[in-house]
Amino acid sequence: MTGTLYGIGVGPGDPELMTLKAHRLISEARIVAYPAPDSGESFARSIAAGAMRADAVEIPMVVPMRVERFPAQDVYAGAAETMAEHLAAGEDVAVLCEGDPFFYGSFMYLFARLSERFPCEVVPGVSSLAACSAALARPLTARNDVLTVIPGPLDDRAMRARIDGAEAVAIMKVGRHLPRLRALIDAMDLTTRAGYVERASLGEQIVLPLADAPDAAPYFSMILIYKGDDPWLTTP
Amino acid sequence: MTGTLYGIGVGPGDPELMTLKAHRLISEARIVAYPAPDSGESFARSIAAGAMRADAVEIPMVVPMRVERFPAQDVYAGAAETMAEHLAAGEDVAVLCEGDPFFYGSFMYLFARLSERFPCEVVPGVSSLAACSAALARPLTARNDVLTVIPGPLDDRAMRARIDGAEAVAIMKVGRHLPRLRALIDAMDLTTRAGYVERASLGEQIVLPLADAPDAAPYFSMILIYKGDDPWLTTP
Repeated sequence: MTGTLYGIGVGPGDPELMTLKAHRLISEARIVAYPAPDSGESFARSIAAGAMRADAVEIPMVVPMRVERFPAQDVYAGAAETMAEHLAAGEDVAVLCEGDPFFYGSFMYLFARLSERFPCEVVPGVSSLAACSAALARPLTARNDVLTVIPGPLDDRAMRARIDGAEAVAIMKVGRHLPRLRALIDAMDLTTRAGYVERASLGEQIVLPLADAPDAAPYFSMILIYKGDDPWLTTP
Repeated sequence: MTGTLYGIGVGPGDPELMTLKAHRLISEARIVAYPAPDSGESFARSIAAGAMRADAVEIPMVVPMRVERFPAQDVYAGAAETMAEHLAAGEDVAVLCEGDPFFYGSFMYLFARLSERFPCEVVPGVSSLAACSAALARPLTARNDVLTVIPGPLDDRAMRARIDGAEAVAIMKVGRHLPRLRALIDAMDLTTRAGYVERASLGEQIVLPLADAPDAAPYFSMILIYKGDDPWLTTP
């Protein structure tokens, strides 16, 4: 009997936005893995900490936070082998994933290495997308809107084309790209339609019109644009 | 002291995919509203039923299930007035929302009518998007992929253009559009890249390659297409 690999979405930041299933699996888990920066606390672990057993064996996957160096395949390869030993010995392994495991998540690198050898279950979580639209108090998508989610690093030409093709747009991983993105959105005459959210659902959450957003945005920040009519503001 | 209007995402179907916060608020709520079909059970209520108080006052919002008749503004206007009375009397009102309240959700029609008069909080939930990629055991988006979410009713020309512009595509609200969508995806030579999921996260969940999906799909079904390389299958 081998163990099961669980990829567990722990949500956008507020520990209360973990699902009941995530909470149950984490509180039962004897082996817990999570991504961690090279210095400082793991964000995923900080969300789940209150649910973890005191005697849990922890497997931090230390990956440099600089986007350019993803994917740090050596780290995932090493962690996968450690997990494989536990799984082969019949122990379940819970991997904590910020937001949702399969929405721009690094869990796929473990899944790719282990899912053919061991049972694997993905527990979906609340994404930062949902947390940001809640924070902005504005629907993400209505009726038959097309929604496009775009990573901030995309170049201006591609970014403009993708924004053109949707009623609702979310730009993720904004970080240092903010001044460039704001200039582009301004040139498209969409600034008044754009909101900025930083660290959604956490105590230090910041919500601003894009025009007022700081030039130095953290990695965990997002721009939401709504181009269509505001149907929810028009009550017949 | 007025009450607070809560728009609560109850997730994609499995009651264990409710958040801890949703569960807490629902179990405390004395007034609970939810969308309901003209015959049969409310899906949102069925997800949350185990958390609800036995003495909760219920406000079903009965809306015909035929897509063509949305938005049924009269129903929301009437429900909003009933809620306004409770809120004005100092009672909180919990509105149960399938998935996430602001992701193609009808909660916006209540939000539009009540959020300027009463405190309002949106509690994000796990979307069907996350549940479907978990069910397919395939990442929704990787690295710097662009994701586009498209409602099934979109016409072929617009649909094709939107699929062209993204690495990852989710087509929601498939229902009776399935044969047309399958023909289009086939013409784009993407059928082998497409998965079909019906009633994600529920006991009766169905997961199939698109080629094998039934012609008569339910409203709660989704097609996921991944056009890029499968980076998660290529472990260096």
